Amino acid sequence: MSRRYDSRTTIFSPEGRLYQVEYAQEAISMAGTAIGILSTEGVVLACEKKVTSKLLDNDGSAEKLYVINDNMICAVAGMTADASILVNNARVNAQSYLKTYNEEIPCEILIKRVCDIKQGYTQHGGLRPFGVSFLYAGYDDRYQFQLFTSNPSGNYSGWKATSIGANNSAAQTLLKKDYKDDLSLKEACELAIKVLSKTMDSSNLNSEKLEFATLSLSKINPGQVIHKIWKDSDIDSLIKESGVLDDKNTDDD
Amino acid sequence: MSRRYDSRTTIFSPEGRLYQVEYAQEAISMAGTAIGILSTEGVVLACEKKVTSKLLDNDGSAEKLYVINDNMICAVAGMTADASILVNNARVNAQSYLKTYNEEIPCEILIKRVCDIKQGYTQHGGLRPFGVSFLYAGYDDRYQFQLFTSNPSGNYSGWKATSIGANNSAAQTLLKKDYKDDLSLKEACELAIKVLSKTMDSSNLNSEKLEFATLSLSKINPGQVIHKIWKDSDIDSLIKESGVLDDKNTDDD
Amino acid sequence: MSRRYDSRTTIFSPEGRLYQVEYAQEAISMAGTAIGILSTEGVVLACEKKVTSKLLDNDGSAEKLYVINDNMICAVAGMTADASILVNNARVNAQSYLKTYNEEIPCEILIKRVCDIKQGYTQHGGLRPFGVSFLYAGYDDRYQFQLFTSNPSGNYSGWKATSIGANNSAAQTLLKKDYKDDLSLKEACELAIKVLSKTMDSSNLNSEKLEFATLSLSKINPGQVIHKIWKDSDIDSLIKESGVLDDKNTDDD
Amino acid sequence: MSRRYDSRTTIFSPEGRLYQVEYAQEAISMAGTAIGILSTEGVVLACEKKVTSKLLDNDGSAEKLYVINDNMICAVAGMTADASILVNNARVNAQSYLKTYNEEIPCEILIKRVCDIKQGYTQHGGLRPFGVSFLYAGYDDRYQFQLFTSNPSGNYSGWKATSIGANNSAAQTLLKKDYKDDLSLKEACELAIKVLSKTMDSSNLNSEKLEFATLSLSKINPGQVIHKIWKDSDIDSLIKESGVLDDKNTDDD
Amino acid sequence: MSRRYDSRTTIFSPEGRLYQVEYAQEAISMAGTAIGILSTEGVVLACEKKVTSKLLDNDGSAEKLYVINDNMICAVAGMTADASILVNNARVNAQSYLKTYNEEIPCEILIKRVCDIKQGYTQHGGLRPFGVSFLYAGYDDRYQFQLFTSNPSGNYSGWKATSIGANNSAAQTLLKKDYKDDLSLKEACELAIKVLSKTMDSSNLNSEKLEFATLSLSKINPGQVIHKIWKDSDIDSLIKESGVLDDKNTDDD
Amino acid sequence: MSRRYDSRTTIFSPEGRLYQVEYAQEAISMAGTAIGILSTEGVVLACEKKVTSKLLDNDGSAEKLYVINDNMICAVAGMTADASILVNNARVNAQSYLKTYNEEIPCEILIKRVCDIKQGYTQHGGLRPFGVSFLYAGYDDRYQFQLFTSNPSGNYSGWKATSIGANNSAAQTLLKKDYKDDLSLKEACELAIKVLSKTMDSSNLNSEKLEFATLSLSKINPGQVIHKIWKDSDIDSLIKESGVLDDKNTDDD
Amino acid sequence: MSRRYDSRTTIFSPEGRLYQVEYAQEAISMAGTAIGILSTEGVVLACEKKVTSKLLDNDGSAEKLYVINDNMICAVAGMTADASILVNNARVNAQSYLKTYNEEIPCEILIKRVCDIKQGYTQHGGLRPFGVSFLYAGYDDRYQFQLFTSNPSGNYSGWKATSIGANNSAAQTLLKKDYKDDLSLKEACELAIKVLSKTMDSSNLNSEKLEFATLSLSKINPGQVIHKIWKDSDIDSLIKESGVLDDKNTDDD
Repeated sequence: MSRRYDSRTTIFSPEGRLYQVEYAQEAISMAGTAIGILSTEGVVLACEKKVTSKLLDNDGSAEKLYVINDNMICAVAGMTADASILVNNARVNAQSYLKTYNEEIPCEILIKRVCDIKQGYTQHGGLRPFGVSFLYAGYDDRYQFQLFTSNPSGNYSGWKATSIGANNSAAQTLLKKDYKDDLSLKEACELAIKVLSKTMDSSNLNSEKLEFATLSLSKINPGQVIHKIWKDSDIDSLIKESGVLDDKNTDDD
Repeated sequence: MSRRYDSRTTIFSPEGRLYQVEYAQEAISMAGTAIGILSTEGVVLACEKKVTSKLLDNDGSAEKLYVINDNMICAVAGMTADASILVNNARVNAQSYLKTYNEEIPCEILIKRVCDIKQGYTQHGGLRPFGVSFLYAGYDDRYQFQLFTSNPSGNYSGWKATSIGANNSAAQTLLKKDYKDDLSLKEACELAIKVLSKTMDSSNLNSEKLEFATLSLSKINPGQVIHKIWKDSDIDSLIKESGVLDDKNTDDD
Repeated sequence: MSRRYDSRTTIFSPEGRLYQVEYAQEAISMAGTAIGILSTEGVVLACEKKVTSKLLDNDGSAEKLYVINDNMICAVAGMTADASILVNNARVNAQSYLKTYNEEIPCEILIKRVCDIKQGYTQHGGLRPFGVSFLYAGYDDRYQFQLFTSNPSGNYSGWKATSIGANNSAAQTLLKKDYKDDLSLKEACELAIKVLSKTMDSSNLNSEKLEFATLSLSKINPGQVIHKIWKDSDIDSLIKESGVLDDKNTDDD
Repeated sequence: MSRRYDSRTTIFSPEGRLYQVEYAQEAISMAGTAIGILSTEGVVLACEKKVTSKLLDNDGSAEKLYVINDNMICAVAGMTADASILVNNARVNAQSYLKTYNEEIPCEILIKRVCDIKQGYTQHGGLRPFGVSFLYAGYDDRYQFQLFTSNPSGNYSGWKATSIGANNSAAQTLLKKDYKDDLSLKEACELAIKVLSKTMDSSNLNSEKLEFATLSLSKINPGQVIHKIWKDSDIDSLIKESGVLDDKNTDDD
Repeated sequence: MSRRYDSRTTIFSPEGRLYQVEYAQEAISMAGTAIGILSTEGVVLACEKKVTSKLLDNDGSAEKLYVINDNMICAVAGMTADASILVNNARVNAQSYLKTYNEEIPCEILIKRVCDIKQGYTQHGGLRPFGVSFLYAGYDDRYQFQLFTSNPSGNYSGWKATSIGANNSAAQTLLKKDYKDDLSLKEACELAIKVLSKTMDSSNLNSEKLEFATLSLSKINPGQVIHKIWKDSDIDSLIKESGVLDDKNTDDD
Repeated sequence: MSRRYDSRTTIFSPEGRLYQVEYAQEAISMAGTAIGILSTEGVVLACEKKVTSKLLDNDGSAEKLYVINDNMICAVAGMTADASILVNNARVNAQSYLKTYNEEIPCEILIKRVCDIKQGYTQHGGLRPFGVSFLYAGYDDRYQFQLFTSNPSGNYSGWKATSIGANNSAAQTLLKKDYKDDLSLKEACELAIKVLSKTMDSSNLNSEKLEFATLSLSKINPGQVIHKIWKDSDIDSLIKESGVLDDKNTDDD
Repeated sequence: MSRRYDSRTTIFSPEGRLYQVEYAQEAISMAGTAIGILSTEGVVLACEKKVTSKLLDNDGSAEKLYVINDNMICAVAGMTADASILVNNARVNAQSYLKTYNEEIPCEILIKRVCDIKQGYTQHGGLRPFGVSFLYAGYDDRYQFQLFTSNPSGNYSGWKATSIGANNSAAQTLLKKDYKDDLSLKEACELAIKVLSKTMDSSNLNSEKLEFATLSLSKINPGQVIHKIWKDSDIDSLIKESGVLDDKNTDDD
């Protein structure tokens, strides 16, 4: 019976649900897991890459991580082409705010603007919702480091640690168990690796299957935010240091 | 048979009903309860938070309470992304009025403008109604403190005490029983806690599950309206003082 | 079979009927009765309030009565949010005419303009008709006091006494029996009470369930039109004076 | 089978018919009869009023007769709200022509312009045809007095005597029998009464059920056209003089 | 099966047909026959009037013949209201060309422009094709007298003699048999009468059922084109002279 | 099953086909054959006329051949009214290019522009594809003589010899057999006649059933392109000289 | 069941799929294979031509290879008319960037802009996705030579070697096996031939069935990018040199 109400964004079902928005979530639940963790020193975003091939050529460009402005980065899960449209929009919004007020756009204001666009695609005819969820890591003067998620409905919320994409509920449970408020950035990265190592389907964890990005404050230049998309070698080092490979082997015994 | 008439906002059913508007109400009836009470000294808005997690990071930003301008706050029940669009609109309208007439917009005029937008989404094709109800608390020179609700149809009405969202009819009954015209703001807050403690499903009442906001007049600066979104500690104190925890325990015996 | 023709305003049924307009009338036939009576001294509009609660706060603002300009008031039956849009429009039209010609807009011209808008919603696609009927009471220099009704189709007509909303045909019959051309305003008010007391479902007639408005000429300032939306106390006095409560009791014996 | 082609104006049926236009004609065939007769001295338009009530207040405003400009009047059968839109349009067109060329618009040109609008509503999507037929009586310098009909399809034609609305074919037959080219205006009026008295359902013919209008030349001011919408008393006199009441009684024997 | 493809102009059937255009042709095949014949001295257009009544008042205005500009006339078969829109368009185009280039628009250019409009109504959504065919008679300096037809598809072609509307294939056969290249205008008129007398359903041929127009060159003012829409008396003379009445009688024997 | 995907241009079938484009091709496959052949001295276009009548009057205007500009001509197969729209467009484009760059538009650029328009009608809603294919013969300084075809999908390609319309695959086979790279224009014309004589249904080949056009370089004025649409007599001479009539007779034996 | 969700781009299926985008991919999977390989000295693009005829005239214009600007070329698989629209767009974008910033547009920025257009056709109503995939070969100062693919969804990704169109997965497997990071441009060309020879259906490999293009740096003018679309003779030489013909014969044994 739900069938009558699931083919348009401009229709409520009798129970008050928007099926097209829920179906868009399905598109995301098949995408690689992305994890975000807030630490005392910054934020880490970690993504699982689903498509890997030695013929792929990703020189210097992450597949699921985007820099929005000097103070914000984000990770996406879902349809990449949809994400591209919204990231563009976020970038333009950020620069336009900077130009108007001569200061970086506060994180929540930017996220809200992007979410308002998403909302429109759930209420007006002749459109489908954006098939993409975001993990935003940002810094602003008022709230310092922040981590947000947003989904196809246009909702967003702030988190200390969370995940989107495939297996996100398993990841969420692991995070809830191991997250502590006083994590250092290094510990946050290791926690991210640990959680991904347990939720990813692939048995062999290495830099080919992962993308990492961190947001932190410069130690030299106080107040300057540093966003870093990690090189493969750094990721591999982290994996080694984090000891998840050993755990895995142990698990496999 | 109703099926033929429930998939568009531009259709009356043979009984003169607009099913899509009624379905939008369903979306709201699943949202957390929100209660508003008018006292002699101001207005209190109280909301139940449905989603709680120790990983959520709501530092200083309420989930269901919005400040519209210096004289008005509101609580929402339903789809947050829809609410965001309308709150934006209300804020712009309020500032535009202030700029034009050099005085704060009277509460009812602002609410009416927002409701006119909602109405449009129930009469024109290619749109769905906004899936959100509002509780507005406001102050203006003519009518002093006021409390309004509005719903997806674009209707609004003034109340002394009322509620929206899940269990709103149970809450309404409790309010009708206990509301008195000469409540102080403190008593109104305690009444709100009391009603929520009885209608919320969760057995453990604490600040993690509640949001509180009050509108009152400054005692120092006559005529200045103070809107306050409560900190968790204040909510917890209120819960303790109100004695609902004891009642609960007593009830459970 | 009618089913094929009832889902769009842009469709005639084979018998030349517009079902959507007829369904919109249904929405009105469930609304509280409104009565209008023309007297030699002015016009009275009286409405039944369907939703009543001691928690409602209608300080000074009637629910179903609107002032359009200095010379016109109206009562509505049906969807309040739809009415709000049309009343807005009427007010803007009235002021625009006043500004252009430096005299109050003649009643019929204003009503015609609003009706032309209503008509458009019965002929163009992607819209539904306005679910609201109006009783207009007005005064202009040419025709003095006047009373009009209009309905969702965009038709309007002038009356000496009429009613819209629930039980309007019963009310019409009573009016036809008791209306006289030489009624004073006071007698017209009493006739209104009498008719409402017989058509309303509620057994207890009091100011909580009624709204009253009158349009008359100032006795001090000749030519000045006075529109008055009655206070609860005035309504209660009228009920008492009219003797309907006694009749009711008598009827109940 | 016709069912597949009757729900849109933008569809021809396999036989080349436009069902929606035919259905619109149905709306007209239920409306009160209107009759127009061309005499040597002017034109008469006569309408049957379907809705009558002693509470109706039609002071000075006919229900189905409209003055378009100094030289043209019209009678309508069908949906009054639709007629209002087209009459507005005709009036604006007439004034605009007068302003541009400094002479009254020739009758046929005006009618053609209104018909072109009607045609558009039979050919473009998202619209329904206008549910109204017109009888136009006009005078211009070239063709003197003229009588036209137009219908929902946007067709129009010139007549010496014709009728629209309910029973129009019966009326047409009577007219064909009794019409003579050399009728005086008075004889034309009496013929109109006679025809209506035979086609109207109501047994009691009086001014409450009829509307009359005539277009003639001023006897004082040569070349000035006089349009007159008749008062009730004049209609009643005419009925008496015409002798139809006697005929009726005779018929009833 | 054709049913799936016949309700929109924007659909090809699997055989590459446009059913809506074919259905529009049906509308035309029910209209009165119109015949056009090119002679050495000019062109004749002759139409059958389907609706006749002694109450009709066609003083000086033909029903199916239109003058486009000084050099062109046309006859229509099909929906008159549709024809009116296209004739308007043709007239405006002709004047606009005259104004721009200071010479009469060549016939084919004008016809092409009107046909391009027709074509649009067969290719774009939310429209139906024009339900009308045209016979154009024109004169220009390059090709002298010309005769064209166009139909709802937007096609047009040049002819020496042709017909549109009801019985057009019977008429075409008769024309093919009797047409000669060296006809005088008078002989062409007589041929037109002869063909119509055989294809028309009505047994009694007279001016009430026919419309005639001719285009020829002035004998006084060389190069001036004369378009003449015939008076009833002229038509009746022609019928008599042509001898078709005698033939008819003979045929009936 | 294909039925679900064949009624809109904005739908891919599950196999990735666009049925509406394929149906448009059907419209073309019923049209008269058109053949184009590139020779060393120019290009020849030859068309079969399907509708012939001695009453047709095609003085000087070919039915299926159009001159686009001084350097390009084209032949069409399919819906003439659709072709007219695109030829107009091509002409305007050619002149606009000439005006902007002061040189004739290169053939392929012009064809590409027209094809881009066609493509739009296969991808956007509320439209049907153009039901017409083209054979373009052109000359430009870079590539000298060229021959192109384009079809409803908006594809185009260059050919040495090709055909469109009915029997185009039979024609294509004959061309493949007999085409040589060093044909003179005269030999190309004779080849065209020969191929048409074998693929046309009609047994009697003459100028009434054929249209011919050639594009060649002036022998007097080097670099000047001459486009010639052939007169009937020239076509008849060619038929005689080409000897196809004899072949036919021989074939018939 | 998937049927309900596959006819519009504005619909998610319950599993979060966009069927229309998947169907568009089908259109591509029937097109000729195209292969791109990155070498140390440049990039090679190679395409299989599906339609071949000795009458085709492709003088100097490749069918599936386009030059975008001085630094980028691309190969397409799928609907040529759709490709034409997007290539146009890419060219305009490239020139517009060059004009604005006075430097060639970086490859990824250009590809992203084109992909954003593609994305729009998967999310907005009344459109179908573009039925075409691209292989882009480009050079810019930052990343030197690059190879990208994009598909109807608007996704793109960078590759060292990849293929699109028919048999692309077989081609991909062959590439994975034989690709080495230190290929010279010549070796890359030979690899392309080798892969195509194994995946193409046609048994006879020659220049008639292949298109080749390379992008490399000028040896004379450092920093200048040279794009070359190969002549038939060059392709035939390459085939010979690459030795695939011998392999083939060997395979056939």
